[in-house]
Amino acid sequence: MKLTPTQFKEFDEQGYLFFPNCFDEEEIALLRDDAEAILKLDRKEVWREKSGAPRTAFAAHTFNETFRLMAHHPRLIEPLRQLFSEDVYVHQFKLNAKAAFEGDVWQWHQDYGTWARDDGMPEPRAMNIAVFMDEVMPINGPLMLVPRSHQHGVLSAGHDEETTSYPLWTLDKETVTRLVGEGGIVAPTGKPGSVLMFHGNLVHGSAPNITPYPRRIVYLTLCAVSNYIRRPTRPEWIAHRDFTPIEPVPDSALLDYARAYKVAAE
Amino acid sequence: MKLTPTQFKEFDEQGYLFFPNCFDEEEIALLRDDAEAILKLDRKEVWREKSGAPRTAFAAHTFNETFRLMAHHPRLIEPLRQLFSEDVYVHQFKLNAKAAFEGDVWQWHQDYGTWARDDGMPEPRAMNIAVFMDEVMPINGPLMLVPRSHQHGVLSAGHDEETTSYPLWTLDKETVTRLVGEGGIVAPTGKPGSVLMFHGNLVHGSAPNITPYPRRIVYLTLCAVSNYIRRPTRPEWIAHRDFTPIEPVPDSALLDYARAYKVAAE
Repeated sequence: MKLTPTQFKEFDEQGYLFFPNCFDEEEIALLRDDAEAILKLDRKEVWREKSGAPRTAFAAHTFNETFRLMAHHPRLIEPLRQLFSEDVYVHQFKLNAKAAFEGDVWQWHQDYGTWARDDGMPEPRAMNIAVFMDEVMPINGPLMLVPRSHQHGVLSAGHDEETTSYPLWTLDKETVTRLVGEGGIVAPTGKPGSVLMFHGNLVHGSAPNITPYPRRIVYLTLCAVSNYIRRPTRPEWIAHRDFTPIEPVPDSALLDYARAYKVAAE
Repeated sequence: MKLTPTQFKEFDEQGYLFFPNCFDEEEIALLRDDAEAILKLDRKEVWREKSGAPRTAFAAHTFNETFRLMAHHPRLIEPLRQLFSEDVYVHQFKLNAKAAFEGDVWQWHQDYGTWARDDGMPEPRAMNIAVFMDEVMPINGPLMLVPRSHQHGVLSAGHDEETTSYPLWTLDKETVTRLVGEGGIVAPTGKPGSVLMFHGNLVHGSAPNITPYPRRIVYLTLCAVSNYIRRPTRPEWIAHRDFTPIEPVPDSALLDYARAYKVAAE
C-alpha cells in the first residue's frame, strides 16, 4: 500500500487518513478470535474498566503470533515509512476493547502529549494506526477525531487519573470547544478490516459504548527509528525499548497464517 | 398534524415515528433560550449530573409560558388524541439537557415500566414525545431506540440508583442483547425542531455526550385521560395529578409568543 500525493496532502491538512476494508474478513476473523482470548487473560498487560470489563491489552505482538504479524504488516508499515522517510519501530501496541455495554469513555487527548511527557519522545514523528476488528458504527463508541487539530502542536493538558482506569493527559473543555469550532468532529465508521491512521497530535476521544455491539480495535503506534524515546517512565510493555526497524512480512502473511491456523484447528 | 394510515401502521410495527423539522427555528430558538435559563435554576425540579451539570428539569410547563404553550401544542397533542382515540393529559414534562462534555448515560429502559411500577399507570396508553431543541447528531448522545421492542410488553427490570443521579428501572444486558438482535438500534438525528414520538414500552437509552455540542430535548409524556395514574409514589411535579384533558392552543401560538417576546425584548 503506497500513499498518493493527494493522500499526503490530505494527511497534512486534516491529520488523518481512513482506508475502508484494508484487510479481508478472513484476516480479521483471526485477529478477533485471538483478541477475545487475550482480553480474558489475567496478566499485567490486560487492563480493566472499573466494571471489570476489559479496557485495553498491551504488547500482544510480543506474545501472540497473529498480532506479531499484524505489527509487521506491510499495509501498515509501508505508508508510515513513506510519511517519515525512514524506518519505523513499534512504540506501543494495544487492543482496545470498548466492550459491549461497558466500554468506557476515553477523554479528549493527544497521544503525542503522553509520548512526549511520559516517554521522552523528541518529536511527533510517530503515529497511531487503528485497525477495526469489529464494525465501527456511530452508536458503539467510535473514535472521534478533531480534524486539523494536529496543527496546533502539543496543547497543555491535565493528568486525568479519575474518570477511568487509564491515566491520561486530557484537554480542557475550552481547548476542545475552540478546536472543534475550527475543525468539527469526524467519527469514521466502517466494516471490520478498515484502517484509520492519525497524527500523534490529532485531538481525539471516544464516548462509552452502551450497545450490545463490541468495538474492538488494534492500535499500533509506529515511531520513526531516529525519534526513539529518550526518558521512558512507563513499563517496557507499554512504551517499548526495542528500537529495531520493523522488517515487513509478506502481504499475504496474515492470510497464510489464518489458513494454516484453520487447517490446524480442523 | 394528522397521522396517516401508513404512519399508524409504522408506529404499530416499529414503535416510533420521527418527524424532521416539525417546528421552525423561530419557535425553537425561544425554547432553547428559556431552557437554558431554567436549567441554571436552583430549584427542586432541576436535577444535576454527578458533575454538577444540569441533567433534567421537571414540570417547566407549570412555571414557564413558552413550555406551557409547548405542552398544549396541537402538533403534539393531535397525533396522540388520534392514536389513543380520546383526550390526553400531561403525565410528565422534562427538559433533558445532555449537556456538552458532561451529559451522562441513560441506561436502557422502558418508560412505561416506571410509570406502571412507580406511578400506578394501568396501561401503556401514554407516550413520549421528544422535541429536539439542539441538532441531534450521531456524536452528541442521541436517543437510541430498539425498534419493535414495544411488542414485548413490560420487561423485568432492576432499579438502578448507582450509575447516574436519576433512579431508573433498567433492563439487563441479556434482555437488551436479545431485543437488539431482533430489532437492531436506530438513533434518529436531525435539526432542532424535529420530533420523535415513541411507545411507552419501546426500549431506549442514550450514551454520554463528550462533545462540545449540547443535546437538549423537551420530553413531553402524554397519557390518555382514562388511563390516569392510580397509585403515585413520586412527587406531583414528576408524575402529575392534574388529569384535565389538554385543550390545544392555536398552531401559531408558539410563533406568536416568540414574536411578541422578541418585540418586548427589543
